[in-house]
Amino acid sequence: MIYEEKIAAVNKYIEAFDKQDLNLIREIYADNAVVEDPVGSDKIFKGIDDICAFYKASFEVGAKLSLNEQPRCSGNTVAFAFSVQVGKMCIQPIDVFEFDEHGKVISMKAYWGPENITQ
Amino acid sequence: MIYEEKIAAVNKYIEAFDKQDLNLIREIYADNAVVEDPVGSDKIFKGIDDICAFYKASFEVGAKLSLNEQPRCSGNTVAFAFSVQVGKMCIQPIDVFEFDEHGKVISMKAYWGPENITQ
Repeated sequence: MIYEEKIAAVNKYIEAFDKQDLNLIREIYADNAVVEDPVGSDKIFKGIDDICAFYKASFEVGAKLSLNEQPRCSGNTVAFAFSVQVGKMCIQPIDVFEFDEHGKVISMKAYWGPENITQ
Repeated sequence: MIYEEKIAAVNKYIEAFDKQDLNLIREIYADNAVVEDPVGSDKIFKGIDDICAFYKASFEVGAKLSLNEQPRCSGNTVAFAFSVQVGKMCIQPIDVFEFDEHGKVISMKAYWGPENITQ
């Protein structure tokens, strides 16, 4: 999987929030993907239907994403630091996408804690 | 493991490079830790002796680290975006430390690729 394809997945992720479009989420993720957001919590979503339900809730509160820095592509992964704006609140996670052999995200881990939230 | 302890490990990591001090590396890592730098490469270092040899080489070229953004503490992990300055070259990785039950780093994964290097 080349650099441009991994960057395209990150950009599509941001676009999904912009357009509140779950079809883009379905394009990004493998059917059997696992999302852990944040890492270490019980918020673990397994399978595309659970994952879509998770993003639907984020879309409904109007969350919008913007990259903080250039993503880091490394092997079959991409790690990226970004901002999630929800009204006046801003959360700044680092997400790691891991891709399967079909170029779909099979694992997403979101690293953030209360210290990364500003009101 | 509380937030401050995870942040202290990141700061100690930066200090280790500043002081070129392998004893600090030994304080950070568990004896049976695994370092993968970058993720997806064959640069996998298992056990504290291999890990120290890896950092010794980085220290010898004078690599210095600085944080780009506030680290993200999440469960038993911390993810942080930073810059590695080696002479005129700058590499910008995202590292993820995973801590064991003793507060030592048991896994380090470094996410970066050629696109994250500037000369």
